[in-house]
Formats: sequence, C-alpha cells, structure tokens
Amino acid sequence: MLSFDVLCTDGLARRAQLRLRHGTIDTPQFMPVGTYGSVKGVLPAALQQMGAQIILGNTFHLWLRPGLDVIRTFGGLHRFEGWPLPILTDSGGFQVWSLGAMRTIAEEGVRFASPVNGDRLFLTPEVSMQVQSVLDSDIVMQFDECTPYETNGRTTSEDEARASMALSLRWARRCKAEFERLQNPNALFGIVQGGMYERLRDESLAQLVEMDLPGYAIGGVSVGEPKDDMRRIVAHTPQRLPAGKPRYLMGVGTPEDLVDGVACGVDLFDCVMPTRNARNGHLFTRFGDLRLRNARYKNDARPIDESCACHTCAHFSRAYLHHLDRCGEMLAPMLTSIHNLHFYLHLMGEMRAAIEQQRFAAWRAEFEADRARGV
Amino acid sequence: MLSFDVLCTDGLARRAQLRLRHGTIDTPQFMPVGTYGSVKGVLPAALQQMGAQIILGNTFHLWLRPGLDVIRTFGGLHRFEGWPLPILTDSGGFQVWSLGAMRTIAEEGVRFASPVNGDRLFLTPEVSMQVQSVLDSDIVMQFDECTPYETNGRTTSEDEARASMALSLRWARRCKAEFERLQNPNALFGIVQGGMYERLRDESLAQLVEMDLPGYAIGGVSVGEPKDDMRRIVAHTPQRLPAGKPRYLMGVGTPEDLVDGVACGVDLFDCVMPTRNARNGHLFTRFGDLRLRNARYKNDARPIDESCACHTCAHFSRAYLHHLDRCGEMLAPMLTSIHNLHFYLHLMGEMRAAIEQQRFAAWRAEFEADRARGV
Repeated sequence: MLSFDVLCTDGLARRAQLRLRHGTIDTPQFMPVGTYGSVKGVLPAALQQMGAQIILGNTFHLWLRPGLDVIRTFGGLHRFEGWPLPILTDSGGFQVWSLGAMRTIAEEGVRFASPVNGDRLFLTPEVSMQVQSVLDSDIVMQFDECTPYETNGRTTSEDEARASMALSLRWARRCKAEFERLQNPNALFGIVQGGMYERLRDESLAQLVEMDLPGYAIGGVSVGEPKDDMRRIVAHTPQRLPAGKPRYLMGVGTPEDLVDGVACGVDLFDCVMPTRNARNGHLFTRFGDLRLRNARYKNDARPIDESCACHTCAHFSRAYLHHLDRCGEMLAPMLTSIHNLHFYLHLMGEMRAAIEQQRFAAWRAEFEADRARGV
Repeated sequence: MLSFDVLCTDGLARRAQLRLRHGTIDTPQFMPVGTYGSVKGVLPAALQQMGAQIILGNTFHLWLRPGLDVIRTFGGLHRFEGWPLPILTDSGGFQVWSLGAMRTIAEEGVRFASPVNGDRLFLTPEVSMQVQSVLDSDIVMQFDECTPYETNGRTTSEDEARASMALSLRWARRCKAEFERLQNPNALFGIVQGGMYERLRDESLAQLVEMDLPGYAIGGVSVGEPKDDMRRIVAHTPQRLPAGKPRYLMGVGTPEDLVDGVACGVDLFDCVMPTRNARNGHLFTRFGDLRLRNARYKNDARPIDESCACHTCAHFSRAYLHHLDRCGEMLAPMLTSIHNLHFYLHLMGEMRAAIEQQRFAAWRAEFEADRARGV
C-alpha cells in the first residue's frame, strides 16, 4: 500500500483515499465480488463504466481453479481476468471453514479435500500468503479462522470465541512473517475476530494494531447472528481501530448495513448480495426492494428505478426484465446485476458526497425514509 | 419495405442495400437470432457495437411469452426489447412443426398445446399475420409448412413434398390477404418450399413470384438433409428468384455455408449457430474452429483469434475463457457469444467488400484456405 489519506470526517464517517499499486480508491467504497476471477454476469468494462474501483477475488477458489501455474503465466490475477484496477483477495479461511465436515482445523492450518477433484490439500497461513503473492492482489488478507456464531447448535461461548480469536492472531503473525519473506510489495490486512464479545474484539484489535499492519478488517460478522448483534459489533469495533488506516467490514451487506457501517467509520465493504440477489430477481432501488418475479411487473413499462442512471434503467423496462427472467434468458441476470451493482456503487458515491458536505446524518435520514417508502 | 437496391454483382453474388422502416441493411448480411426478444447473452448495445443491423425474433415464442398484451403496451417488439434497428420475425410455422406429436396440421392451420402452460392454441396464416403486426417487425414471414427431409423414417417423397409445398402456397395467399387487411406497413416475404426436388422448388417459386411479394426466402433447408442436398438446393434456387428483390436463406449455417450461399446469390441469413455453439465452447476463427474445452487451452495466453478485433479477443485469453467455462461462469458464454457473432458479422462485411472489389472468387479461395489451416 502506498498511502491512506483521510480527507474529511463527519461524525465517525470518513472520506478518504487509498492508493494501491494498481490505482487509487475513493472510500467509503464497495467492492464487487469476483470469486473465480469474474464478477458473475458483468463484463470488466461494464464494471469500470459504473465506477467500480476495486474488485474482490477468492484465494481458495482461484488456487483450485485455474491453479497457480495458469495465474503465473499471466503474472497475476489482473492480466488473467482483464481487470487493470486494484484487487483484494481473501485468505481462503472463510471457504475452508465453510467446508464443515470436509476439513480439519489444527494449529498448523486446515486439511481438506478439494471439492473440485477430491485432492487432499493443506491450507496454512504460509500457503495463503504464497497463493496471494502469485495472485498479486493489491490487498492481501491474513489467513484467519472465522469464528462461527453457533458451535454445536448453541451460541459460541466466550471461551470458544477466545480460543478461535487467539488462533487467528497466531496465524496473523505467521502471515506477516511469510508476507515479508516473500517480499510481497502489496498491502497485508489483519482481521479482527472475537465473535460477539466486545472484550475479545478489543483484545484481538490491540494485538493486531501492535503488529502495525497497513489496514484492518472486521471479520466474523454476517455469519448467521441476529442483526442486533451484528450492529453492536459494528458500532463497537471500527472506531477503536487506528484512524490513519483503512477499515474493511467483510461480507456486509444490505444497503442499510452499508450506511450503518459508514456511520460507524468503515471504509471498505464487499458482499455477494447485489449480484446474487440480482440473479434471483431481487432488485435494490432508492425506494425499497423490488421482487422482479412478482406478476404485477408483467406489463410495467417503467424502469426498475426511475431515479437510477444505470444502463439497465436507461434502456429496459420492468416488463422486459420480468419476461427475460421468466424465460430463463441469460440477459436477465446480466441486466439485473448491472443495476444492483450500480445501485451499490452509486450509494457509496452519495455517502462520500454527504461526508464531504458534512451532512451525512441528514442524508442518512432522507435515504432511510426513501427506502422505507416502497417501490 | 421501402426499397432494395443492388449496388453491384460479382458472379451470382450481390452487394445491395435494403431499406426498412427501422433502418438500412447492407447485404449480404447475417441476422443474429433473438428468440424470446433477446439475443442470448448479448446486450443490444454490444450487438450494435459489433455492427449488427437486423436481428430476428420468433413469433411463436413471443406470442406465448410475454404475449401480445405486453408487446402492445410497448407498441411493438423494438421498444419492448430495446432494439431500435430492423427486426425480422419468422411465422411460427417452423416451431409448431417442431412440436411433433403435440400438434395437428390441417388446411386451416395448426392446432397445438402450449409447451408453456398446456393451453389449446390454433395458429393459422391469419393469426401469424396478426401476431407479427403487433410485433411490428420490419420483415414479416409468411406462415408455411416446413417440409421435412424425412417422413415416417424415410426420405420425404416427391408427392409428399408437393402436397406440403402446395399447402404453403395456399397459406401464402391467405397471409398476403390478411397482411393487406391489417394494413401492415412492413414487408411480407414469401417462402419457397419443395423439399429436395428442384422441380417443386421451381413451381413454388413461380407461384410466389406471381404474388409479387417484396422479398423471398428459401425454407426447408438445414432440416436434417445431407450437406450435398442442401448445396444442390441452394445452388438451384436463389438465382431463379427476381433479381430486384432480397433473398433470404433461412436457418443457415456454418461460415462455409454462408460463403456458399452468397456465391449463389443469397442476401440474408440467420442461424442460432454462433450463439448456441458459443455456449458449448465451439468458437469460430479465421483459421478453423476452436474447441474451448480442450485441455490444451488451459494455459494459452493468446486470444481466441489473433486476427479478430472483437471485444473478447481484444481483452481476454483462451486460458481465461477456458477457466470461466470450466467454472460455469456466466461470463464465458457472454464473451464467446460476442466473439462468434462478431466473427459472423465481420465475415459478411468481408464478403460485401470482396463483391464491391469484384474479387469474390479470389477472396473465397483465401478464406477457405485460411479456414482449413486450423487454429
């Protein structure tokens, strides 16, 4: 990472610029998810047109397919996937954790069987750093254990959450050592864990800050906990992180979650929600969410959102999109993904402007009233 | 139809301009197929960028979904699907014929059960004209019976083909009467049938020419017959059609078929091959066809076709496309469809230029040598 400059603040909300090797990011910013080296259904050129400045790739998936030999041929993920701007890659931790019974977590790392071909694989902090160095992502995430909200069918206890958090801290140190050994010129971010326990979050945060990493993420939220618990942890954590470093809330969330996160001092977000929901006909609009499959849209000549400037809203009607979806036409998820991603990216732009104008609270009240109005 | 002007000829090949209500078409031209009001996986804006001048819609499919009430709201298919340039619609004849046991063909028309919801439907020449008037397509195809290559497991006999051809002629007259009654301002094309029998083709052609329609199609080819039979009928028929009217070879074909068709005097083509094959990883290139799923492309950093100027070849490698296809990523068919359609459209442009320069035969020899070289 070259630099992170906070341009102005409004309450806890911050307007900043993050300079990385492949470009500069205006924060608060949303990062579309490109798991396998492709944001599902959207051309890279279209992402750039709608103002995306950074996208995410998944280390676990890209390690398995296409594999490092292929990525090496291209000198990294940017040229392989035709995306010249910054990329953040996760560590693979969340994906191996999600494998459930198919993996064993130990001090050294996680053993698992490849869901692609059954190969026995071993993912460690060191391997994660090695893979992410080949990917050449601008932001490298530490390998961590995502502390689950529930363990054995009940809420994860504080002792369990502490043990998990402590493991992630030990892995963070190993990641840093390996990242330095590899002389990776990009930015390694640490991940604050600690489950739903503020005390553990503080402990995790303090030790990560001591490591003086260039950025920090809040992990282990949006993992099945009640919304109030998520809000409590998001309200608690970001403001305790160093003011001069970027803060990334992982895997969050709805438009309202993003606004709440920014209000709490978060700079970066990623979530599959805009693209995944688009494929299911769940569209975000300024005036609430729209379920495209509802028969009421069969003959509706209006765009998804009359206040939206995206390619889809400029050219196509609800009736046409409803029809394409009903016929299983690929153009439906293509056009709805463009709309939902544009909505998320535009929302971040509105928040940046509101912070610059020192009217974030007023903007937020308007936004929430508009959203509650309904389409 | 406003006009059809033959600008020059080279042998039987013609370079012409066809002016329709929504725009002018340079022929020879290829028409991408948009069955349900969408060329599968390709944005209308991308089609325009790659030079598509006219696309096809399927009357049968659009009649069932979204239905005429929806299309009427938009004043026709152009505004519904966001395509401002010309559209050709087929008559629904081929689709009802393809329903096999689910339909009954009689003098008046075809009774069938909707494959969408089981509704009992009755498609007649008059209904086809009514539906196509609502669609407001620039070129309306007559309702016909597509004479099959085989009947009851053996080659269709001359008597069977004659009866079928005669039915299509009676339907052509009913179409013309209904088209005029509806005061449809667009262009109605007749369809020459007659199976694999030149004598029947001549009979069909003579009676259709007598009706003085603004354009003629050659139907009932590419219906399962051996390639030599198709070539024989394509070599026989177009040159016998009126020189001052456009000629459309329906549902054809491979790049070589298109070149052969142009050499025989055909002006317009449509085929699902570029988009359907793209979805199956079958890519067309100047130097032969490329099977993207072949493991040899796993690490191949070259574009699909180094001589190609399409968006896909300008930005992405064979390795990346191979990877996307293997992962089932939607971006794979999106990018391969762009390439294949661009290849077809560019091929037509090359043929137009060769005719203008009076070097079609030399161009064809080069093209066929290049294609035979292999990727």
